[in-house]
Amino acid sequence: MARYDFASDNVAGAMPEALDALVRFNGGFEGGYGGDAVSVRAAELIRGLLDADAEVRFVASGTAANALALAALAAPHEGVLCHDHAHIATDENGAPGFFGSGLALLTLPGPSGRIAPQGVVEALARPDEPHWPSPAALSLTQATEYGAVYSGQDLERLAGPARAAGLGLHLDGARLANAVAAGFDPKSLARMGFDIVVLGGTKAGASPTEALVLLNPRLARRFGARLKHGGQLISKARFLAAPWVGMLESGAWTQRAAHANAMARRLADLMPFPLTHPVEANAVFVAMDEARLEALKARGWFVYRFIDGSVRFMCSWATRVESVEALGADLAAIA
Amino acid sequence: MARYDFASDNVAGAMPEALDALVRFNGGFEGGYGGDAVSVRAAELIRGLLDADAEVRFVASGTAANALALAALAAPHEGVLCHDHAHIATDENGAPGFFGSGLALLTLPGPSGRIAPQGVVEALARPDEPHWPSPAALSLTQATEYGAVYSGQDLERLAGPARAAGLGLHLDGARLANAVAAGFDPKSLARMGFDIVVLGGTKAGASPTEALVLLNPRLARRFGARLKHGGQLISKARFLAAPWVGMLESGAWTQRAAHANAMARRLADLMPFPLTHPVEANAVFVAMDEARLEALKARGWFVYRFIDGSVRFMCSWATRVESVEALGADLAAIA
Amino acid sequence: MARYDFASDNVAGAMPEALDALVRFNGGFEGGYGGDAVSVRAAELIRGLLDADAEVRFVASGTAANALALAALAAPHEGVLCHDHAHIATDENGAPGFFGSGLALLTLPGPSGRIAPQGVVEALARPDEPHWPSPAALSLTQATEYGAVYSGQDLERLAGPARAAGLGLHLDGARLANAVAAGFDPKSLARMGFDIVVLGGTKAGASPTEALVLLNPRLARRFGARLKHGGQLISKARFLAAPWVGMLESGAWTQRAAHANAMARRLADLMPFPLTHPVEANAVFVAMDEARLEALKARGWFVYRFIDGSVRFMCSWATRVESVEALGADLAAIA
Amino acid sequence: MARYDFASDNVAGAMPEALDALVRFNGGFEGGYGGDAVSVRAAELIRGLLDADAEVRFVASGTAANALALAALAAPHEGVLCHDHAHIATDENGAPGFFGSGLALLTLPGPSGRIAPQGVVEALARPDEPHWPSPAALSLTQATEYGAVYSGQDLERLAGPARAAGLGLHLDGARLANAVAAGFDPKSLARMGFDIVVLGGTKAGASPTEALVLLNPRLARRFGARLKHGGQLISKARFLAAPWVGMLESGAWTQRAAHANAMARRLADLMPFPLTHPVEANAVFVAMDEARLEALKARGWFVYRFIDGSVRFMCSWATRVESVEALGADLAAIA
Repeated sequence: MARYDFASDNVAGAMPEALDALVRFNGGFEGGYGGDAVSVRAAELIRGLLDADAEVRFVASGTAANALALAALAAPHEGVLCHDHAHIATDENGAPGFFGSGLALLTLPGPSGRIAPQGVVEALARPDEPHWPSPAALSLTQATEYGAVYSGQDLERLAGPARAAGLGLHLDGARLANAVAAGFDPKSLARMGFDIVVLGGTKAGASPTEALVLLNPRLARRFGARLKHGGQLISKARFLAAPWVGMLESGAWTQRAAHANAMARRLADLMPFPLTHPVEANAVFVAMDEARLEALKARGWFVYRFIDGSVRFMCSWATRVESVEALGADLAAIA
Repeated sequence: MARYDFASDNVAGAMPEALDALVRFNGGFEGGYGGDAVSVRAAELIRGLLDADAEVRFVASGTAANALALAALAAPHEGVLCHDHAHIATDENGAPGFFGSGLALLTLPGPSGRIAPQGVVEALARPDEPHWPSPAALSLTQATEYGAVYSGQDLERLAGPARAAGLGLHLDGARLANAVAAGFDPKSLARMGFDIVVLGGTKAGASPTEALVLLNPRLARRFGARLKHGGQLISKARFLAAPWVGMLESGAWTQRAAHANAMARRLADLMPFPLTHPVEANAVFVAMDEARLEALKARGWFVYRFIDGSVRFMCSWATRVESVEALGADLAAIA
Repeated sequence: MARYDFASDNVAGAMPEALDALVRFNGGFEGGYGGDAVSVRAAELIRGLLDADAEVRFVASGTAANALALAALAAPHEGVLCHDHAHIATDENGAPGFFGSGLALLTLPGPSGRIAPQGVVEALARPDEPHWPSPAALSLTQATEYGAVYSGQDLERLAGPARAAGLGLHLDGARLANAVAAGFDPKSLARMGFDIVVLGGTKAGASPTEALVLLNPRLARRFGARLKHGGQLISKARFLAAPWVGMLESGAWTQRAAHANAMARRLADLMPFPLTHPVEANAVFVAMDEARLEALKARGWFVYRFIDGSVRFMCSWATRVESVEALGADLAAIA
Repeated sequence: MARYDFASDNVAGAMPEALDALVRFNGGFEGGYGGDAVSVRAAELIRGLLDADAEVRFVASGTAANALALAALAAPHEGVLCHDHAHIATDENGAPGFFGSGLALLTLPGPSGRIAPQGVVEALARPDEPHWPSPAALSLTQATEYGAVYSGQDLERLAGPARAAGLGLHLDGARLANAVAAGFDPKSLARMGFDIVVLGGTKAGASPTEALVLLNPRLARRFGARLKHGGQLISKARFLAAPWVGMLESGAWTQRAAHANAMARRLADLMPFPLTHPVEANAVFVAMDEARLEALKARGWFVYRFIDGSVRFMCSWATRVESVEALGADLAAIA
């Protein structure tokens, strides 16, 4: 049977802190749709994490969270600047266009999933034309899809010109925990003027839950109605909120991301194939030909070839060092 | 503090069978998006329940499940026949129109949430006109929003003409467990030609999960892509599937619905206010003036006045007979 | 062969002033998409008519004009207040929901297509709830679908509370020419704070063209892009603008509407059937049983039974007094 | 004042045959929405042109025609294969995504706007994945955006594999008249299994009108309702149909396209700059640096730099040989 350990950071179950909270908060009757005590507590913890007086909502899908965020920032006839290989552009099957009624993704290049600043500058310099979409928002992913981490300065170099041009700012933080564990300060997001942060729970080690954090208070009006309309207002809201209470009260959200990052670092150290991207979070990308990838799969390890052609190994809260070492040995054997 | 016990059947947590399954299936690595062993097992159990070779998908929101179902059955310029007070028409904030790109709900009257057959016949007799939407599907709710249960014969009286006219058939089964507990045969749905059944997990006593059951195999093609595009493809799919395994393997899905129905029956027996709808499932609706409703709320019981003007009391798997009796005593005191 | 003279006010061709302008402005090369000299001149004339510094765009379809207007004023999860029998609600096949990504129409009663003020007040008093759409705009039709004309005071009684509550204001002016000919002051619309007026060309006697008049300057930004995205940015824009130049420079837009109104008045005077609505513009509605309607059709006159059950007779710029008298004689014969 | 003669083929007015028909069919009363005698006659002529028993509808915008066509062939979560520089992908501001509720355009390379067959083969070989859109249709442009003309054999090389894989086939025929004038047989489209052809009227020399030709009869059901819902059902339909009667009865649709092609050929012969694409229809594309383009504009000629970097000169039915020669002289002067 194939081993999925390194296939993604969503192949593991929930970390103990998240699961225990689900059980802990299961009893009793609670009003639904986000007004319950668990949701209120989880929102408080997230406001503390980001040091911001934000409206916080929980949804079950990161794709939906991102798509709803973009639809809140750009009109149907406008566009969102993002990286060529951003998850929203390559892995969400057009969800931004669906939730955004045809809004466009305007993709920009840059190494390891980080947008090169020049692309933003050029995009902002283009005059409005009715024949194609003008940018209304900038979407950044932290950590990036290639396991790189923007520094605060990196982010500001992109966010600053966008903000100055009146664009909205969206952060896809599916792996923000890993970036934070790598040293990124989550409190800097509000200061930089991000309007919406999607704070990743699932890949960090929760059961399915993502936090839609509306840092811009103007966006909060009737957002519950928007969620309902978009099929994302969950009646038993406590089940999406409880894992956050468990993960944030304990500090496990960051600590277990640090573990995932360390496992990736350990794997990189053992890796006999050339790295194609810096290992700054919980991913290791390498150059590997098809024969060797097949050989690896023949040894039971299921991993993906990514859109840039690299082979991707993801670590998570559940990755055991023994697995890393076993994988390392197999990699060495086929290299 | 307000007691929400009777406010809805979604104010309780998850039943033990559902929660235990979440914990039981949490360990180990699993591929995501519905290909995992837990999802496969849950789908098998649902096929057994409905005696049909259906494609089964799990989503976190009943609103989304219904909206995706309707969008699969009607084009944007077509309509869906449903009851005037169907949940899809009155409580989902336009989600069918959003997922269906502007599709219309064509509402029909009938007592206690059951559509009167004459309305369907008349709607089907109207000629197509480009200026307004023609019906392409019929949506029925079982048990209804008013706690009534269609008999098999009732359903067929509505489904038959619709099917004969080429319409698709959708069942909103948010409370199908309660209907089954009341004697309705779930195996009859496939035989009657229903295309899609939304099988309710949440209100039956799960953590958030609904099963989208595609009885019509033609609809299954690329449905995973449709879910992704609609923000409803959950990576850690086991968390939506596990409660189903727990509830169906044990029989608790039906048994606990029978308990909820019995609690409603018991409450009806104690009820000093006139019933406005038959008590056939887990709801009790009564006529109560505003002063008495306020008096009831003053005693701590939070319940809703429904759109027909009745006051609604919902029972669930978690309703205790002591609570019913305490409520009954308070009702008697204010009557 | 059936005579369509009274079937609608869109069964006639274009009035001479409109057609001549099409021919007159056909020569030479012009940039497209609304920047041409003809479009610029037509926009100026409309700004003069409404005494407002508005952005003016021309589209070929009133349905699209209305739907784009509503989508500019209400978010997908919000609603638009309108009359139960407003054209947008009953005759546009869900176009507002399509352009507005599922936005809701919240319909209100009132005699002869005029909304009763109490309905607006009640709708505005309802608290926001995520489960159903809150009103974000008010849409009024002038003259109404039943040929009634709001006085300025009538309009303000509806617009005032809506404006005070922060709603956007939309006027469906498909038959504004008839209202103006009946004494309504078009310059009052900007003063009352209407955000968008759809100024009717087609029914007034143009070839297909409607003016989307954005009185609220905030809405003008990137509106050309919105039109393109919605399939409503016409390259050879002069063909939509020229009729307006012809109709407004000559005064024919109002004068020929006055003729249509007079023809309706004349028909009302001859009418042997009871009027069901006041005859204030170019429509005559009467109570007529099915046998008599069939008898009328047997004499060659094609007219519609409207959604309120009345039979509708519409007059237009092209209605000849001889036709009215011939129809009157036939009506007398069958009465 | 700038001369727009060569800026596009939509900068001219309507050809005499089209304009005369508008005037000729203006009189009398006609039922609307496409049931009128003029629409019926125009549809017959188009069926004759294409030798196919098709449903024919007229809309005012090519963008809308294309977008509605694609939405009829691909579901919201599917994609449409088209050229990297197809008009639908680069010049319609996301309209396909709007009308198609988020459908994706999957772009493919190829010289001069013609898709290289290998791209189609590769796209069809990819397995379905829920994370990104699978192709459901192939869209081809004839003549291409670069003035190239596919031979029947060229088209079949692309259409054949797509058809075999079950994809729908769409032809953007905004400039089909020019392709026909260049020798392409329009009767071959139905034989090749095209489902929808958008037959260009505007650029061919009509007032705004495009014919949506549904060659696949399955697509015709309730298409009028689809048009209404999409804001494209014009009440005074005769104004969109009349130009077609004028252009097709007289043969001018093809003959005047032949003139446009000849003017482009003549311009190419005079051209001192290197051609960047073959001159097979009514366009001339050349390599020209910015200084020379500015020099040309300084002499009054307004033309565009296209997305491939070439400078584009378009000819139309209205292009006069004297203008071509004057332009040629100016080009020679600045070269």
